[in-house]
Amino acid sequence: MNIILLAEEEIVNQQVTLLDYRAKHIVKILRSKQGDRVTVGIINGKTGYGIIKEIARKQPYTVTLDVTTDSTPPPPPLIDIMIALPRPIMLKRIISQITTLGVGRIFIVNSEKVEKSYWESSLISDKSWQQHALSGLEQAVDTRMINLSFHRGFKPFIEETLPRISEKYNQMLVAHPTYKEKLSNIFRRGKGNVLLAIGPEGGWNEYEIERMVKKGFTGFGLGPRILKVETAAIALHAMVSQLQACEDAES
Amino acid sequence: MNIILLAEEEIVNQQVTLLDYRAKHIVKILRSKQGDRVTVGIINGKTGYGIIKEIARKQPYTVTLDVTTDSTPPPPPLIDIMIALPRPIMLKRIISQITTLGVGRIFIVNSEKVEKSYWESSLISDKSWQQHALSGLEQAVDTRMINLSFHRGFKPFIEETLPRISEKYNQMLVAHPTYKEKLSNIFRRGKGNVLLAIGPEGGWNEYEIERMVKKGFTGFGLGPRILKVETAAIALHAMVSQLQACEDAES
Repeated sequence: MNIILLAEEEIVNQQVTLLDYRAKHIVKILRSKQGDRVTVGIINGKTGYGIIKEIARKQPYTVTLDVTTDSTPPPPPLIDIMIALPRPIMLKRIISQITTLGVGRIFIVNSEKVEKSYWESSLISDKSWQQHALSGLEQAVDTRMINLSFHRGFKPFIEETLPRISEKYNQMLVAHPTYKEKLSNIFRRGKGNVLLAIGPEGGWNEYEIERMVKKGFTGFGLGPRILKVETAAIALHAMVSQLQACEDAES
Repeated sequence: MNIILLAEEEIVNQQVTLLDYRAKHIVKILRSKQGDRVTVGIINGKTGYGIIKEIARKQPYTVTLDVTTDSTPPPPPLIDIMIALPRPIMLKRIISQITTLGVGRIFIVNSEKVEKSYWESSLISDKSWQQHALSGLEQAVDTRMINLSFHRGFKPFIEETLPRISEKYNQMLVAHPTYKEKLSNIFRRGKGNVLLAIGPEGGWNEYEIERMVKKGFTGFGLGPRILKVETAAIALHAMVSQLQACEDAES
């Protein structure tokens, strides 16, 4: 945890009293004492610092901070992700790692190769995915909560949701073995957001790829190595960011 | 597992009989039957296929294959990794994921911020890291076993080992917050291998960075977001591969 994230409504008269994992982190990991500064941020707001007014170093750990927030978090990322629902244990890690790398929206969709039971996960039903997104922000020193949505029908997502949002993207990209062109060759130069699609283990089926390409996705090949979804999600995010950064440097 | 890997010495008269997790995979996951083909490869050798001669679909699972290997695995990767020993549970995932992405050598080194207890892990003492490298190859459909070594002294590695190998690299790269230049700006165009250094949680200390730069490393910045070692390892590997691929495309 590289920043203590606070909800706006927790702060009263520029003060906040923490009793949960954040207090424990300040006591046990940071080993802070009265008068010390810790990095704080308001969820979907500014970053700054908290000065420790009171601290109970034994259980129950309690920390009261005087809060000042006057800095802006890192610029919003230019990548959104569309991903076939992965195994829940993998989804946790993907959400936190992709949030750390920076993402605006994550659309979690169905695909033929998604196991039906994954849709019953408590990550979805009790929204516990949020804590993994939060831990990704706490790692990245970011405050912007990701926008994540679940879409249990592939076809309604592609036919109805996607057309409403596709115009905002400079490019929509999908890796698939039938495409041989490298990402660097098909990447569309120019500013703007990219929607990057990550398939399920075993890949999108031909129908799914065909629908995606018809709705504006550009396919590319990743070469002969087959990646796990988790590895692919991070590697592809990094590759697209790298190409966007090259673009920035040249313009 | 996308390829069944065999040790050369397991094959007798073009046949191999499997009794371990590979037999179980063929029975339970692939659900193969007599006469079916499965993808096989010889560790550090060629890839090909095995035709199932006999199969016992109940425990103990047993599969006998007629083996033909006549294809070459993907070209050897142009990236080597130097990484500060991470927490063992993270090291497992890093070894398997980086092996999947493709790596020649991994040098695992000490750093001030590495917890001493990590060096007592059974991953090192009983060489159980090898099974994670193997599972990375099985995922990637590769046969080239990585070359992995442990270096418990940072200084001897930098002062003695590194100078013996540094000439073979086109560039040696290290991400560190004191460097502001982006990777794409400092990346040295041209063919050849890259040695990429990944620090510990909390980063290399100033002494370590100074020694590395003195011995030929080029520093670059990753921006304001702080990544976990696991995320950084995959993301940086992908970024360097992407730059190498751009280079290929232009030459």
